[in-house]
Amino acid sequence: KMLRRVLCTVLFVGALPSLAEASQGHISVVLLGATGDLAKKYLWQGLFQLYMDQVSSGHSFTFHGAALTALEPGQRLMFDVLKKLACPPDESPDRCAVLKDQFLKLSQYHQLKTAENYTVLNREIETLLRQEGLKEAGRIFYFSVPPFAYTEIARHINSSCRPPPGAWLRVVLEKPFGHDLASAQQLAAELTSFFREEEMYRVDHYLGKQAVAHILPFRDQNRQFLDPIWNRHHVERVEIVLKETVDAKGRTSFYEQYGVIRDVLQNHLTEALMFLTMELPANVTRAEEVLQSKLQAFQSLRGLEKNSAVLGQYQAYASQVQEELQKAQDYISTTPTFAGVLVHSDSLRWEGVPFLLTSGKALDERVGYVRVLFKNRAYCTQRETLRDAGHSQCKAKQIIFYIGHGTLNTPAVLVSRNLFRPVMPEGSWREAVGQSDLHIFGQPLSDYYVYSPVKERDAYSVLISNIYHGRKDFFITTENLLASWGFWTPLLDSISHQPPRLYPGGAENQHLLDFEMVSGEVAFILAEPVELLNPNKLMPSDYRTIQSKFRQRPLVSAWSEDLISQLASDIEQTASRTVARSGQFHLALSGGSSPVVLFQRLARHHYAFPWKHTHIWLVDERCVPLTDTESNFFSLHSHLLQSVRVPYFNVHPMPVHLNQRLCVEEDRGTELYAKEIMALVANASFDLVLLGVGTDGHTASLFPHSENGLEGAQTVVLTESPVRPHQRMSLSLPLINKARQVFVLVLGRGKHDITALLSRVGHEPRKWPVSGVNPSSGQLVWYVDYEALLG
Amino acid sequence: KMLRRVLCTVLFVGALPSLAEASQGHISVVLLGATGDLAKKYLWQGLFQLYMDQVSSGHSFTFHGAALTALEPGQRLMFDVLKKLACPPDESPDRCAVLKDQFLKLSQYHQLKTAENYTVLNREIETLLRQEGLKEAGRIFYFSVPPFAYTEIARHINSSCRPPPGAWLRVVLEKPFGHDLASAQQLAAELTSFFREEEMYRVDHYLGKQAVAHILPFRDQNRQFLDPIWNRHHVERVEIVLKETVDAKGRTSFYEQYGVIRDVLQNHLTEALMFLTMELPANVTRAEEVLQSKLQAFQSLRGLEKNSAVLGQYQAYASQVQEELQKAQDYISTTPTFAGVLVHSDSLRWEGVPFLLTSGKALDERVGYVRVLFKNRAYCTQRETLRDAGHSQCKAKQIIFYIGHGTLNTPAVLVSRNLFRPVMPEGSWREAVGQSDLHIFGQPLSDYYVYSPVKERDAYSVLISNIYHGRKDFFITTENLLASWGFWTPLLDSISHQPPRLYPGGAENQHLLDFEMVSGEVAFILAEPVELLNPNKLMPSDYRTIQSKFRQRPLVSAWSEDLISQLASDIEQTASRTVARSGQFHLALSGGSSPVVLFQRLARHHYAFPWKHTHIWLVDERCVPLTDTESNFFSLHSHLLQSVRVPYFNVHPMPVHLNQRLCVEEDRGTELYAKEIMALVANASFDLVLLGVGTDGHTASLFPHSENGLEGAQTVVLTESPVRPHQRMSLSLPLINKARQVFVLVLGRGKHDITALLSRVGHEPRKWPVSGVNPSSGQLVWYVDYEALLG
Repeated sequence: KMLRRVLCTVLFVGALPSLAEASQGHISVVLLGATGDLAKKYLWQGLFQLYMDQVSSGHSFTFHGAALTALEPGQRLMFDVLKKLACPPDESPDRCAVLKDQFLKLSQYHQLKTAENYTVLNREIETLLRQEGLKEAGRIFYFSVPPFAYTEIARHINSSCRPPPGAWLRVVLEKPFGHDLASAQQLAAELTSFFREEEMYRVDHYLGKQAVAHILPFRDQNRQFLDPIWNRHHVERVEIVLKETVDAKGRTSFYEQYGVIRDVLQNHLTEALMFLTMELPANVTRAEEVLQSKLQAFQSLRGLEKNSAVLGQYQAYASQVQEELQKAQDYISTTPTFAGVLVHSDSLRWEGVPFLLTSGKALDERVGYVRVLFKNRAYCTQRETLRDAGHSQCKAKQIIFYIGHGTLNTPAVLVSRNLFRPVMPEGSWREAVGQSDLHIFGQPLSDYYVYSPVKERDAYSVLISNIYHGRKDFFITTENLLASWGFWTPLLDSISHQPPRLYPGGAENQHLLDFEMVSGEVAFILAEPVELLNPNKLMPSDYRTIQSKFRQRPLVSAWSEDLISQLASDIEQTASRTVARSGQFHLALSGGSSPVVLFQRLARHHYAFPWKHTHIWLVDERCVPLTDTESNFFSLHSHLLQSVRVPYFNVHPMPVHLNQRLCVEEDRGTELYAKEIMALVANASFDLVLLGVGTDGHTASLFPHSENGLEGAQTVVLTESPVRPHQRMSLSLPLINKARQVFVLVLGRGKHDITALLSRVGHEPRKWPVSGVNPSSGQLVWYVDYEALLG
Repeated sequence: KMLRRVLCTVLFVGALPSLAEASQGHISVVLLGATGDLAKKYLWQGLFQLYMDQVSSGHSFTFHGAALTALEPGQRLMFDVLKKLACPPDESPDRCAVLKDQFLKLSQYHQLKTAENYTVLNREIETLLRQEGLKEAGRIFYFSVPPFAYTEIARHINSSCRPPPGAWLRVVLEKPFGHDLASAQQLAAELTSFFREEEMYRVDHYLGKQAVAHILPFRDQNRQFLDPIWNRHHVERVEIVLKETVDAKGRTSFYEQYGVIRDVLQNHLTEALMFLTMELPANVTRAEEVLQSKLQAFQSLRGLEKNSAVLGQYQAYASQVQEELQKAQDYISTTPTFAGVLVHSDSLRWEGVPFLLTSGKALDERVGYVRVLFKNRAYCTQRETLRDAGHSQCKAKQIIFYIGHGTLNTPAVLVSRNLFRPVMPEGSWREAVGQSDLHIFGQPLSDYYVYSPVKERDAYSVLISNIYHGRKDFFITTENLLASWGFWTPLLDSISHQPPRLYPGGAENQHLLDFEMVSGEVAFILAEPVELLNPNKLMPSDYRTIQSKFRQRPLVSAWSEDLISQLASDIEQTASRTVARSGQFHLALSGGSSPVVLFQRLARHHYAFPWKHTHIWLVDERCVPLTDTESNFFSLHSHLLQSVRVPYFNVHPMPVHLNQRLCVEEDRGTELYAKEIMALVANASFDLVLLGVGTDGHTASLFPHSENGLEGAQTVVLTESPVRPHQRMSLSLPLINKARQVFVLVLGRGKHDITALLSRVGHEPRKWPVSGVNPSSGQLVWYVDYEALLG
């Protein structure tokens, strides 16, 4: 056997002192996919670097390349790669030559295809260790294979290649880790059936980029300077950017399935984002604490919506796809090759600060950076030409983690000189001597303190070292992975059919991909240039709102997102007019799920809404405490009230929880609410009542055949719902019909049947309470989305 | 008499066609102080310009110069001035010469000293009009005299020189209009006894500066572009600046009393501020609407505090004052000659936008401007060097009203080209041809659309024309004046003894006067440079907080402002620690006036306060509706709750208004509140209770000899106050003493006696309820300011 022969040679010539003298135990590294591209380009070099770094650590090593290829050709292929391993510039050539020789002797090739192959590999490792009298420290299995192969390999390793008790197992996985939340969950579940969480090392090679890996240590070592300014009061915006000049040619079979968001934003840029936004644990070297804190940072991210992103596709992409994937000429790809995404964190620290994540192929330059721009808070009394350039507080203040390429062409950390002189670890980063003519983000390099790594290290060699050291915080845990997919999947779903803007590629893109933030959304600045559009690709994204009639009343209809925008604008307009006329606006809102999107829209996009003069009333309430998540008021509070400034006195939850008990008749909550309405709302006529419709035709909490509320003098009533919680409080139909304006919102395919029914029936409130909504002197408008209207 | 002789000559030679042909009536202009500096420099020229402009208007004119000087020398002095009147460059020399000749003939000098002089003047005007058969249109009296002379002149005009019914009277007043709110009110009251509001034209010559006068028309004519961006979502900051190179030499007798804030900020810069912040009336040419809207804008201004301003004084000022005012060598002036003030408007439109008002003497350049800087909302994907300079959305976006001098040396309106091409009135403003090498606010002039006036007009000639046209919106109404003084006086009072930073003057100032905004305050960026300080001028502004003991408990003492800062920080610290420990913070707050400053401080300066996890309870409440301004909760809401984000559920007002009636025992409000406390606060032990002390030793609403609340098991009680409103609800002493921490805040000289008393007496809660505050297992800290402590 090859292995035995190599080992025999080794033992015979006694050329492997590290193996014999090891006291910390032996580590076997198995590289699966040993002859693949990644292995050739980075992984073998990383393993060689590990060996050079750790040869005196007390551990002994063997390196096992593995692939599906048969032994002889595989061996040849692999050793061709190994012979080309480079000596790093900071290593003495003599020492390196000796070590490389040793490394080659410690490496062998295996064909790993069948279950038996794995059993044999395991046996060989055990035999060697026994023969050499070595204690086993652990085994590293590096999966440099396509994800479809993961499960089978994992099964083999789990059943045949686990090290004995006391030694560890580390399996290293390369992305992609799924395609969306569901597929990532499935893949994770499969892997979890073979490996324990602490055994899995999911690689995001960005975490091995020196500038990215230094974000947390930088925040930690510069706490004294950053503590007061690392927050929304001081940070104006953050840009996390990876621009590429190459395109997807030759990789479209992969790329067409993934696109730029899955390829770059979901993983690399998101990880950088987390390092910036997470609360700094007391000890940044404790992986546990770092991972915990990162997960919390994920929870603070505000959900993405369709308009959180701008998308582009370079013009040649379509024909590359057609060619490489043998698609027809009329095949349309909506896969984005460029994306700019606006992310917000709702943590106290970052609320309101825009984080712009941008990446794309076929752009004007190759560069990666994380840029934190601070607010301009200074006023300089002296005129510009007389200011002392170096320290003027009126110059921009920035901290930049420069990942590589671009103008600087080296990883670096830059801090504006008017901010502070950063503390940097002496051994690993050194102050760079500036090329004074360079400009970085609008400022000469001399305006910054610039640090670059003493040794520039490839990301993979950093990561391999971290695997060896068991630094799990440099890898993606299952929780972390799923949190990230959970964050990105809704956006990916909502844009999946959206045609991206076409761009020519390279410097010709000009301003075509520039975008701007407006009310928490992003949009391209330039209008779509007609001449670039392939007419075949025009898609009707302009689903305009239709205005028509429904039940003899005005109907507004559109796809749900546009409908909600329209409704929110109409409510704001009504509010502004009413406040201008009467000084206050009495708005009664319904519970249920449909209004949630509306509440969010109002909270995030309607800054000019006259909240200060608005009274908020409830149309109906469930008989649960207000702090119960089932409470309509609780939902209203979470999605709207906590984000806007309605005076405390103007908020009128229904009194369903008097005397610490729920909707007891003798507590007379309905009377109390009725009195409050009488006292504050002129003629008990609300300015606007927002209603929904149930599949059974109920509205407010007025259910079919209800004893209360469909008629009679009572204005606020207790009712019974057919679904839990049964007890409800509701405004009555007669009170609703006194309103100056009533909007009824109907969303979703599930409402199609009742919508169709309602379009035919007359005034039959006992059967279908909503059919009794008929403001006696006010206006009624139906807002029904296409799905409810058209099915 | 001179007058008759002039008129006779005029009539004899028939050289005054305008007088004879007038059909719109005659206007008599009386310039009081006709031989003074202002008259010489601006006013006569302005009157001549008025005559040139209006000679064909149908009005006839006579111009009456007046002063205390006797007739002959006065006449000589005045005609020396008149002979030097200049012809404007845009006027044909021939026409101007004719008109100047006519103007001289229509002008005469009067000595106006005694009551009789005024009677005579009046009679002469009447005689002329009768003789000429002219209808009287109106009279303008221009007060170019020191303010101490106002009252007497006003009395004479009122009693002897009013025009007959049907003709108008306009009196024109020059600043200063008082020294603070009280003196301005007094002066206004005096004037009001002689003139009606519509008769008074108070001049702020800044309103005649062409760029300032164009702010409102610009906003009006560019509504389509500005409507979406003229608000806090788009504007980053606004700078309103008047820098001078001259110093106060020769004027110190005036300046020493006024200083830069009264001289420039209270009037000129404030007026510009109002034009920017006011809501645009539907019709900007209707003076009524403009003035009304301006007054509303004043009401939205947030009150200034000591730290809203940075102050400077040029070094030579002290010796100039000593010399000119014959002061001793050790005379110390705290009059600021430089000020930078941060103003906030709390309107929905401007909330959070910093308005920086800056002015100073002996600075590096003479320049005035209003600069509106918009937020940077764009991300440019292309690298800088490849961007199309002209239209890049990543360049700064600004609108500048350039008042004059400085780099441009002309009034101008500048709008960044990446914003919009402004609409400008064609006749009066024209696009300027750029000098491409000029840089304005960091950008080449070519980045802007630049407009300058077709005719550059002196402010006074603009204003005199506006007086003639009765455009009251170009002048300062009494309400406007008092609103402005009402805004500035608290700041002026609070800084009256504060030593300004010394600066050398001119370009040497370097960065000494640069300042920055921090949490709603401003501070110089550079630490006080020791070498510039005259040791004689050092004042102990660093009143540190003293830590000691009071009633055997920790005492924190300082001047009130510092004490409040310390207390606010201590509360935040307690809150953060408590939330970290238990997830929530139960804070019980007292009513009364002392906590108001604290509430404001917490609202404005403690952004990191964990409000989301804080429960707010009331220590006591007056039995009035919560929306009554006397309610403790109402005050707490106005000063704190409306500015922070405490969840609705966490706010616990006392139930003093159940069933629409106030503190009726059978409504059992006290029980209700006690139950709520029991339900939410662990062991009914508040994390922090904030108390005050009354002059009678009461605390919370527990008054001496109260029947309830001083002892016993009841935790929430109804009590009787000796002052109205008598009925109160209060936490009981036993409940307060269960708290983990109690802070007692005592402020002001009025509390000195009770403080002194309390320092001596023991535990006697029936006599002095506060002496019973004695947390059984919690901590008690006294916060007593120097005035209360030391008297």
